[in-house]
Amino acid sequence: MSAAQKASSKHRVAVIGASGYAGAELTRLLARHPGVRLTALGADSAAGKAPEELYPALRGLDLPRFQKMDATAVAAEADFAFLALPHTESLAMAGDLLAKGLKVVDLSGDFRLQDSASYEEFYRHDHGQPGLLKEAVYGLTEIHGRRVAGARLVSNPGCYTTTAILALYPLLKAGLLKPEGIIIDAKSGVSGGGRKLSQAFQFCEVDANFSAYRVAGSHQHIPEIEQELTAAAGAPVRVSFTPHLLPLNRGIFCTSYGALAGDATEADLQACVADFYKGRRFVRALHGGDMPNLRAVVGTNLIEIAVRLDARVSRAVVFSVTDNLIKGAAGQAVQNMNLMLGLPEDAGLDLSALPV
Amino acid sequence: MSAAQKASSKHRVAVIGASGYAGAELTRLLARHPGVRLTALGADSAAGKAPEELYPALRGLDLPRFQKMDATAVAAEADFAFLALPHTESLAMAGDLLAKGLKVVDLSGDFRLQDSASYEEFYRHDHGQPGLLKEAVYGLTEIHGRRVAGARLVSNPGCYTTTAILALYPLLKAGLLKPEGIIIDAKSGVSGGGRKLSQAFQFCEVDANFSAYRVAGSHQHIPEIEQELTAAAGAPVRVSFTPHLLPLNRGIFCTSYGALAGDATEADLQACVADFYKGRRFVRALHGGDMPNLRAVVGTNLIEIAVRLDARVSRAVVFSVTDNLIKGAAGQAVQNMNLMLGLPEDAGLDLSALPV
Amino acid sequence: MSAAQKASSKHRVAVIGASGYAGAELTRLLARHPGVRLTALGADSAAGKAPEELYPALRGLDLPRFQKMDATAVAAEADFAFLALPHTESLAMAGDLLAKGLKVVDLSGDFRLQDSASYEEFYRHDHGQPGLLKEAVYGLTEIHGRRVAGARLVSNPGCYTTTAILALYPLLKAGLLKPEGIIIDAKSGVSGGGRKLSQAFQFCEVDANFSAYRVAGSHQHIPEIEQELTAAAGAPVRVSFTPHLLPLNRGIFCTSYGALAGDATEADLQACVADFYKGRRFVRALHGGDMPNLRAVVGTNLIEIAVRLDARVSRAVVFSVTDNLIKGAAGQAVQNMNLMLGLPEDAGLDLSALPV
Amino acid sequence: MSAAQKASSKHRVAVIGASGYAGAELTRLLARHPGVRLTALGADSAAGKAPEELYPALRGLDLPRFQKMDATAVAAEADFAFLALPHTESLAMAGDLLAKGLKVVDLSGDFRLQDSASYEEFYRHDHGQPGLLKEAVYGLTEIHGRRVAGARLVSNPGCYTTTAILALYPLLKAGLLKPEGIIIDAKSGVSGGGRKLSQAFQFCEVDANFSAYRVAGSHQHIPEIEQELTAAAGAPVRVSFTPHLLPLNRGIFCTSYGALAGDATEADLQACVADFYKGRRFVRALHGGDMPNLRAVVGTNLIEIAVRLDARVSRAVVFSVTDNLIKGAAGQAVQNMNLMLGLPEDAGLDLSALPV
Repeated sequence: MSAAQKASSKHRVAVIGASGYAGAELTRLLARHPGVRLTALGADSAAGKAPEELYPALRGLDLPRFQKMDATAVAAEADFAFLALPHTESLAMAGDLLAKGLKVVDLSGDFRLQDSASYEEFYRHDHGQPGLLKEAVYGLTEIHGRRVAGARLVSNPGCYTTTAILALYPLLKAGLLKPEGIIIDAKSGVSGGGRKLSQAFQFCEVDANFSAYRVAGSHQHIPEIEQELTAAAGAPVRVSFTPHLLPLNRGIFCTSYGALAGDATEADLQACVADFYKGRRFVRALHGGDMPNLRAVVGTNLIEIAVRLDARVSRAVVFSVTDNLIKGAAGQAVQNMNLMLGLPEDAGLDLSALPV
Repeated sequence: MSAAQKASSKHRVAVIGASGYAGAELTRLLARHPGVRLTALGADSAAGKAPEELYPALRGLDLPRFQKMDATAVAAEADFAFLALPHTESLAMAGDLLAKGLKVVDLSGDFRLQDSASYEEFYRHDHGQPGLLKEAVYGLTEIHGRRVAGARLVSNPGCYTTTAILALYPLLKAGLLKPEGIIIDAKSGVSGGGRKLSQAFQFCEVDANFSAYRVAGSHQHIPEIEQELTAAAGAPVRVSFTPHLLPLNRGIFCTSYGALAGDATEADLQACVADFYKGRRFVRALHGGDMPNLRAVVGTNLIEIAVRLDARVSRAVVFSVTDNLIKGAAGQAVQNMNLMLGLPEDAGLDLSALPV
Repeated sequence: MSAAQKASSKHRVAVIGASGYAGAELTRLLARHPGVRLTALGADSAAGKAPEELYPALRGLDLPRFQKMDATAVAAEADFAFLALPHTESLAMAGDLLAKGLKVVDLSGDFRLQDSASYEEFYRHDHGQPGLLKEAVYGLTEIHGRRVAGARLVSNPGCYTTTAILALYPLLKAGLLKPEGIIIDAKSGVSGGGRKLSQAFQFCEVDANFSAYRVAGSHQHIPEIEQELTAAAGAPVRVSFTPHLLPLNRGIFCTSYGALAGDATEADLQACVADFYKGRRFVRALHGGDMPNLRAVVGTNLIEIAVRLDARVSRAVVFSVTDNLIKGAAGQAVQNMNLMLGLPEDAGLDLSALPV
Repeated sequence: MSAAQKASSKHRVAVIGASGYAGAELTRLLARHPGVRLTALGADSAAGKAPEELYPALRGLDLPRFQKMDATAVAAEADFAFLALPHTESLAMAGDLLAKGLKVVDLSGDFRLQDSASYEEFYRHDHGQPGLLKEAVYGLTEIHGRRVAGARLVSNPGCYTTTAILALYPLLKAGLLKPEGIIIDAKSGVSGGGRKLSQAFQFCEVDANFSAYRVAGSHQHIPEIEQELTAAAGAPVRVSFTPHLLPLNRGIFCTSYGALAGDATEADLQACVADFYKGRRFVRALHGGDMPNLRAVVGTNLIEIAVRLDARVSRAVVFSVTDNLIKGAAGQAVQNMNLMLGLPEDAGLDLSALPV
């Protein structure tokens, strides 16, 4: 097969909402992906520009320019689409693309909550797509990978939620932690807030600073976390979740607290997590005194998890870290695409972190 | 009274352990303090150097050079001493200085724990000074100020502990929070680790990174926090405490979680804290949706505290921030000195934070 | 005299354009200034807000709210005004305020260039106020202080220009450097760009990055620098000036290069600068191998200057640092106000830098 | 050929001095390199440790432990060696390894200067290996690639020198710049200083700071830069070179100034550089108003170069950026190895920069 034939036999993929941070990371990953061809980049406000005008790090890649695209335009260029649009903007577009025969991974919060009432409470918007909601598979790949493989529409989890759920899921499922009183104290780099201009994200506000936001049970990732942890525990889980802003670009660090349900040792807790993720390439379950390191995952699709036991108070402390734009967004989206297209799960995701 | 007479009538103070970060901040504050004269700076490893050789920001102040000083040397120069030595090194020095008639504020952990067994467990060192331990007053000024005023030896609280205790004390004392299940998730700037060379504090390890350390109930500030919160609650308090390292120089941010004991509203919780600290100049109890801002306290002796209610889970989330080197160390030490010497509590502490 | 009488006898000052970064720093300095009363804060876009809503560090000061103010409104509240408006917006306001009898310090570039053609070239705007231009005194206080003292209208220098000119002025005036071939490689913290929202100043663009901008002779501070250095040298000076953006909030660092005119030694060069600024409280001329330290001046009205001789190429390298919002803006503006009002030059400017 | 056969047919390479920052980056690159097998990591102080104990980002790679290694031990494990030792420590080791038949890339300064007197002046150490010095090829790959391909011993250039020389070389060679009066104002991230513990590199000293060091013609990279630029110009070049420390981990930014020799336009200057590097994959010569972006090269083996003309003063300003640990050290070292072993020049160097 010639190079041209090979290229033409590759799946054609488009990114809609490509000018944002998750879109830029998707663009980078897909442009270097061995199994697909990146054919279109949709972006309204940046239409007409080359991606490298916004992101100098994309210089040197052979990329299409940003353009305004409706579903028909996307369908003309691609058989697979990523939607990296603001919340509520995916609702209609996803349905239109499916109707035209494309498969879709949606990175917004629009199809993550099985309960549309929760959606309406936290996103303050009517859902109005009950059929799609029912069809959408929640793309936390290590948990729902089998269903992802057969899906037409995958809803990619949030960055905080991926980091928090993967850490607590095995322990709750095994009954080692009580479902009540889970606390998740989460810290994120600034890129989690997206590229949209905001006073809160100006350098002079963030640097040498640290702050909490959307506190006291108001963050829209809460129902998503509770939905999955409830399924894990087989009993209602209600969490305290506090997001904070770190003065750095990339990375999420979650410190989660849960009371022991029995008398597990620290080794039991660590073994539980390690066994659950055995063979899963993108999960690093740490042992002994090893602790997650943010910079060991930045630039990769990895999550690192460590469980420690605070025996004085009979409580487990679970530490988990990801790159919010990769495992927390674009990387997991590509991982899901790989399964949906029958490609190796790690195709295009052989990334490495800088040692310094 | 002539300027010379005024100067000679001022209290003469010395800083022992002056070359470390808390020592440098003490030096700056005392050199500009209107009511005292800074007469000596003790430092073994830096002996012979001028303070500005280590700290260019101290250029232009008229400071003594660092010198090696035993108790006799200190007593010849000063009637008041700050000990900013590593833990365990204050044990003997404090007694020697008291015996020579000086008053002392000790910034180490050596006299903070009324229970010497706790000291020995967390500091891994025999205490051996039971008499001094009994005499020492725990210098959390807003709580124990009256006893501080009459003390010869004040043990200055730790940075994490000041930030955590002042936030939770009023709520526990008023019975609004249950004493069980308190969680303190704490984040500190790097200066909290001191000036001592360490791979963990090299720029390339810390920048663009975030990590937890001394996890799972092992940090030496835990018994100090529990001692004070137990006194507040009138019942045993055992906390989960996790310290983290922020990629910035100064500032501590504590996020503390506690279950409601009754059915207090958010307004009740906020009023409790505000009333408790009414008239206390260095405490800013915030109202409504206002949140603590690290940079609003850096450079000052302030603590900012906000309480928010997560009604979904009936749990209060308490946010508190300080400058770890000022309210968390040197500033509170000066505040204590002011009371011990009968000076205005805020003398030399009229500091302001940079708006940007 | 009672406290109320003292307050009422104080000069009443207003800040127009108070919501920007220079305005916020002016607000902080003036609110704590012993000789004036801050009576009004003009700001259009933030009108109605309290300053602490934009700047939490201003909490606790007793400040007026922002309001829209024309010249009449300002004149009703104040006899002295600072204009911290964007370039071109001061042109009319300054004249109106002078006509109403106020004294004015203007922080924009509008009255800095004696040659209005240069103004029109670099600011791309007609000047149209030749009379005021002639009257305005260029407020580089250490150079033009005597004329400042008698002025009604003072044009406050730019941040880069203050840092660069004060460093090179003595050496050119003394004839130790050739006027040809001066190169100024300047690096500034992000607050120099102001508070206005900009993609270029979002945290994710700036952090862990470093860039040059307005390169190749296009920056509007160039004519200002050349105007003053030409006066110093008594011969035309044309400089290469390249501004860069540092990933930090505050501080300017200039590295300037000039060829020796004769055979001065390093000691000669250092003595020249030290002698020129002898007795000037806000200039620290360094000796020997001491080098300027950005953090030793941040938070203060100081400039630190060091001259070193690169004997291999017979060229002096001059290092100078300031806090761009204080000596480079608000602090020097207050210093000028002090002279214009007959107050001590350093009133309200007894600031100190954090040692860590 | 089986996988085992393929592996066994690969070149076996060792890194000596593997525990430092350049060593860690080499380790990462070689562990993922398709054409070689990393068989040994020499490190004295860290002997016995696993690389991931020092560098969590290296977790998950299948790496040998650090060990103490003399030349015999190295020769038993490898046919190719990288020396990433402190200056002066390579002098003997390089010769010993060559004698045992290995090829060597040395990353220290020990074999960079053809003139051993310069070495002795700037490194303050006798050279004592005149034969090796004569044999060593200076591995600035884009300039000396052909000679590198046939070499046994390649001396890898410094990080500052690579960034500065590649930027100025084409312009001097083409005679567009005068050889006199070249000024290189260089700024480097902290990793350039290496992993060795140092007060100067503690986070609290560097963060929110910026400083110059080894000023006034004293930096050891100066003779290396002059050696190459003199060759380019065909006339003696003496440069002013000032290194500065940026508060970030990785990246070098050089701003270089040179007087025009004739009347070239900006387009001429840009075309000169672009033509010189035509077809060279690791050089990005920018056009028009495009400027180098540090973060566009961090994580890659690229150099970005832009030339701008300051017509007011008839001087070119040349901007160039690299990742100091990759193109400035480990990446160029691998590029040189590729040529020495007959592998594709970019094998193992298909790296990409993060867009955010």
